[in-house]
Formats: sequence, C-alpha cells, structure tokens
Amino acid sequence: MNLNNPFYSKIIKNTKRTKSHLCIGLDPDPLKIPSKFEPSVKGTEKFLTEVIQNTSDLCIAYKPNISFFEAMGIDGLRMLERLCKLIPSTIPIILDAKRGDIGNTAKKQASYLFDIFGADASTVNPFMGADCVEPFLEYKDKFHFILALTSNPGADDFEKLMLKSGKFLYEQVIDTCSKWNKTYGNVGCVIGATKSELASVRKQDRTLPFLVPGVGAQGGDYHDTSTQTKNDDDIVLINVSRGVLYISKEDDYLDKMRTVIVKNYTSKV
Amino acid sequence: MNLNNPFYSKIIKNTKRTKSHLCIGLDPDPLKIPSKFEPSVKGTEKFLTEVIQNTSDLCIAYKPNISFFEAMGIDGLRMLERLCKLIPSTIPIILDAKRGDIGNTAKKQASYLFDIFGADASTVNPFMGADCVEPFLEYKDKFHFILALTSNPGADDFEKLMLKSGKFLYEQVIDTCSKWNKTYGNVGCVIGATKSELASVRKQDRTLPFLVPGVGAQGGDYHDTSTQTKNDDDIVLINVSRGVLYISKEDDYLDKMRTVIVKNYTSKV
Repeated sequence: MNLNNPFYSKIIKNTKRTKSHLCIGLDPDPLKIPSKFEPSVKGTEKFLTEVIQNTSDLCIAYKPNISFFEAMGIDGLRMLERLCKLIPSTIPIILDAKRGDIGNTAKKQASYLFDIFGADASTVNPFMGADCVEPFLEYKDKFHFILALTSNPGADDFEKLMLKSGKFLYEQVIDTCSKWNKTYGNVGCVIGATKSELASVRKQDRTLPFLVPGVGAQGGDYHDTSTQTKNDDDIVLINVSRGVLYISKEDDYLDKMRTVIVKNYTSKV
Repeated sequence: MNLNNPFYSKIIKNTKRTKSHLCIGLDPDPLKIPSKFEPSVKGTEKFLTEVIQNTSDLCIAYKPNISFFEAMGIDGLRMLERLCKLIPSTIPIILDAKRGDIGNTAKKQASYLFDIFGADASTVNPFMGADCVEPFLEYKDKFHFILALTSNPGADDFEKLMLKSGKFLYEQVIDTCSKWNKTYGNVGCVIGATKSELASVRKQDRTLPFLVPGVGAQGGDYHDTSTQTKNDDDIVLINVSRGVLYISKEDDYLDKMRTVIVKNYTSKV
C-alpha cells in the first residue's frame, strides 16, 4: 500500500499506538443514549462529544454513519459538522455515506464529504461502475473503501452471485479495486465480519486494507476477524458501533465503554 | 401496477394532462444558472423557484438530485426543504438519493427522504440486497425506483456482467424488482436511455414503471425512448435535467425552457 497516503499513514501509527484495530462507528440514536442525556439533537451531541473525548486514545479511526445524522434532520447534519471538527486530526474520519453516481453527481458527492465535512475517507457503492467511483479516488490524499462483501443477509442477493467467468460478483469487485488501487493508491474494501469467505477474500489481494463491519452487535468476533482480515502491513479497520456506544444507559457509561474497548478490542500482547 | 399507490396514480393523471412523460431533474449548479441570478444558494433558489412556478403545468414529476444540493453545504439542504414545500402536491417529488444500506441504516435513510423532505418517491441502490431495499418499500404509499441498468459507461463494469445463470446482473435485478413489486406494489426501475437493451428490458416485465435518465445532455432521444420504455399502463418517467434547466443564460430562459419542453418533450398527438 501507499504509505504516503495521509489516511493510511495515520492508521498505521494509530494501530501501533493503541495495539488495536478498532474503528468506532458513530451511529447516533437519541433513544439509545445514556438516560442522563435528553433524547434530542442537543443531548446526542453532548453524548458523542464525551464519547470522542474519552475514546480517541483507544481507537484508530471514527466512522460516523451519515444516515443516522440525516435522520435527525438538518440540525443533525450541523451536529455532524461540529463533531468532525472536534475529532483530533490524528484520528481519521471515515464518513460512511455509501455514495456513488454518474461522474458529475459523484463529484458533488465527494465534495460534500471531503470539502464540507472534511472527512479523511469515504465508503463508496460500486454498483454503477468505474466512472461513478473514480471522482472519489481523484481525491488522492483521501481514502476510499468500496463495498464488496457486506455483513447482511442480502449479500446473497447480488454480491454473492456467481458470474459466468467463474468468479463471484464480490470477487470481481475486489479485482476491480486492486486495479483502481494500482492507479490511485488510496483504495480499500468493505468486507463483512460475519462471512465464511474472509480467508479466501484476504488471499485474493494481500495489500488492500479492509474496513470490516459486523463485529459486536452483528455477531462477528474481534480477534478472529482481525487475524483473518489484516493486510500485509498488519492493517485492518474493525468497525464497532452499537457494541461500544450503547454499552450502558447508566452514569457509568464512559467507564464501561473504556473497559469494553480495552478488554474486547485491544491486543493483549 | 397498483393504481391505488398515490405516486403512481398522480403520474397517470399528469401524463394524460400534459401529454408528456417528462420528469424535470433539479440538479442545481450555481455556475450554470442564468446570468441575472447571483451564483449563490440564494440566487439558485430564486432560479429554481421560477423554474418550478413556470413548468409545473408541463411535467409529470420533479426529480431533485440531492447530491447537487448537498454540495452547496447545509444551506443547500435547507433550500431543498423549502423547494420541496413549494412544489404543488399534484406533482410528485422523486428525491434522487440512491441510498441503500443494512436494515437499521436504511430505515434512517428512508425516514430522511420521506419524513424530513416529504418526498413521494426515492431511488435506491440494490447492491447490498433485499434487507437494504425493503425498509424503503415499507413506505407503501411512496414509490421506489431501483437502479438496474444505468446510462453511464461504467454500467459495463458490474451491471452488465453475465451471470452463471445466463442472465445479466441487471436482468437479475429487474427479476428481483418484479418479485418485490408483487409484494409491495410500489417498485420501479432506473433504466438508462442510452442503452441498446431498452427493448429487451421492457419485455422482461411489462408492468414495472421505468425512470429513464440519459435523454438530452447524455444523448438519448425523447420520443424513441418513451415509445420503447412505456409500461402496459403507458407510463414512463423520462428525466431531463440539464437539457431543460440550462437552456439559456439570458433573460429569455423561461420562454426558451417552455418552448423546448413543448417542442421536444410533449406528444404532438
């Protein structure tokens, strides 16, 4: 991988520093935050501010899921703007938006994530093909995780269809990502943790970094998953959202959150 | 198709009234609006307000492309909120956002489009499968156009891959949409106008309504395309964005816009 990419080099540093592959998913849900906070945009922002201030020494990245902010209305997006500024610049922000569209629209989408919110990385849906992904990759100092094999049951519907070539569709997506990565040097894949295909997918290209959701609430195990999915720089981003954020409704939530991270998502070595 | 669906029944009425299949795409770009307007959010909103006030008798729907509003920052989204309220309730709003994600996220995405902006229909990316699309379909009084075969060159990369089953991926998507439509009664497909496959795709399911981009700036012909893509209720939504919005930079833009619509996008019969 391209060690000069600012996102990737920060991830390498943070992985060494924290002895963890943990990316904390910020999926704000006013109904799930600790009881001491008002279940509103304001209360949620206070909660997430505390989360960031008390976990940035323990994780390698944050992944705000923009849809959860959008569902709180435009005030939710203003909150996202402020939180993106609050996150220390050493901890990269993957703005999980799963965009992708024809060229002139994709340019607007990329500008939204990188110029408006100042994200360091994006997630991109590859369905519509190269000209819908490349406007993201043109942001060369940013990093882009392309959906390949996701952690949900619906992955069977299209991603896991067998092509006439003998490859699965997700394998074709990964091959295409390898090609894009050779040109741009800033490409990774989203690979779900709950999949039995983890080992074979990892063998397909040992260099691409994976962003791996599905650990925690969705059932994947952190240690097994990280061992199976690290690339040849020992890099993987294991995303946990609900399993960290909503660990307790009581006033002990920060202690519990840190304890869970250290116990479950940090290497004992 | 389900004639009781509020979106679909409005489209039928509007098609008869206007003798047109035209859906006007609202893709605001401050640098392309007529010179009399300031190239800002404010100027763009004034321009789009005039467009809506002067074309709603000539089109069957509006399709704001949310990415163009997002790229103008959060003020751009506030503008979208106001414009959605301005559009007469007889003219449905397809909010083109191409979302789709695992269940709990897709619910948030659908809520954003329908509860926050009050859209009547959405566009959905099917890549991640059924559980990522169904939270949209659960909004039963709304309508949902699933990406199947798009108008860009990148459609060759994945959509047009041949499956082991002997079908193309886009044919498999259309088959799945037919199945979803049997359950939910509110499903259509996005099919690009520039494709040689239009006739065969139309034969695959004569009931699904198509939303067809690619006419105008992207090269497709309106009359040929609408003849080839109408369903068995004579319904199709032909989207034109740049070919209507940016027809003139001069003060005659409203006259020119109406003339172009009547001349190019209205049936002479």
